[in-house]
Amino acid sequence: MRKASVRTGHITYTPIGVIRSTHTDPEKTPIQGVYAKGCLGRAEVLPEYEEGLKDLEGFSHLILIYHFHRADSVRLTVRPFLQDADHGVFSTRAPCRPNPIGLSIVELVRRQGRTLHLDGVDILDNTPLIDIKPYVGRFDRIEKTRDGWQHEVDEPTARRKGRRGYDPKNDPEAAP
Amino acid sequence: MRKASVRTGHITYTPIGVIRSTHTDPEKTPIQGVYAKGCLGRAEVLPEYEEGLKDLEGFSHLILIYHFHRADSVRLTVRPFLQDADHGVFSTRAPCRPNPIGLSIVELVRRQGRTLHLDGVDILDNTPLIDIKPYVGRFDRIEKTRDGWQHEVDEPTARRKGRRGYDPKNDPEAAP
Repeated sequence: MRKASVRTGHITYTPIGVIRSTHTDPEKTPIQGVYAKGCLGRAEVLPEYEEGLKDLEGFSHLILIYHFHRADSVRLTVRPFLQDADHGVFSTRAPCRPNPIGLSIVELVRRQGRTLHLDGVDILDNTPLIDIKPYVGRFDRIEKTRDGWQHEVDEPTARRKGRRGYDPKNDPEAAP
Repeated sequence: MRKASVRTGHITYTPIGVIRSTHTDPEKTPIQGVYAKGCLGRAEVLPEYEEGLKDLEGFSHLILIYHFHRADSVRLTVRPFLQDADHGVFSTRAPCRPNPIGLSIVELVRRQGRTLHLDGVDILDNTPLIDIKPYVGRFDRIEKTRDGWQHEVDEPTARRKGRRGYDPKNDPEAAP
């Protein structure tokens, strides 16, 4: 069993698998699962971790934690895709963070052994997967929130910009 | 600027700060923010990352990603706190995961420079903080979910077990 360790202020993790998707161009990858409906993909978990997937198929949605393996160098202030204004990187989901960790909520279509078939995949192909957690409504669905600069972006604009030009022909929700 | 790197399959991160809380006993730490209302705490971000916090104060809730620095050795099958049955570790939020990464949704009470004052803190004191993301309703609030084994745990039981015996005198929601 490979384990993470903390040494001299560094934290080391080892991928538990890889995410496969149709997204090979960072510029055309939707920014969130909610804007990636119809983008199918899968998580291929390494054989030694398959036992840890038991009962995961009971959950409709998963939180994937992964390494932004193609992230640019760190920028503490960024202009996010959804708005033409600068924000602190921790106020955004941009990849250019001090620790380039990505988080996506995706739909689990089905589990086939150690392969998780997913919908709403907003993740680049071959991204190293670090952790999987179940999305649990009673923990993760916060009913009333104040959403900072995101409130200044109207929903049609968010949907249009959030999709970032991925091919809508695979998208059952797209207009004909 | 300290950067994360991938080398020979290992991913290395460096803490961006530390989480301070009243929880010093893992056995008495609530298991999720939703069961930790009234548990105040703070995130102390290192000076070199303060610029990245700009505009974070506009958000009512944050997703904290941190290192379970006191996690036990890895177990792929675990019996979670909320239910007396074994599940794969990826179907739970238990700390004994292959990569011991924790995720909590907490309430941001206020930001004071590089100190984030928090409510709903279910995290052990002195936990290394790896990343901060804003909780965004349009991304993270999934209205309809199927919650696997969590559906078998009724809400009063979840609330009682989820609090795990932390001192209720600080809890405005606790019965008198």
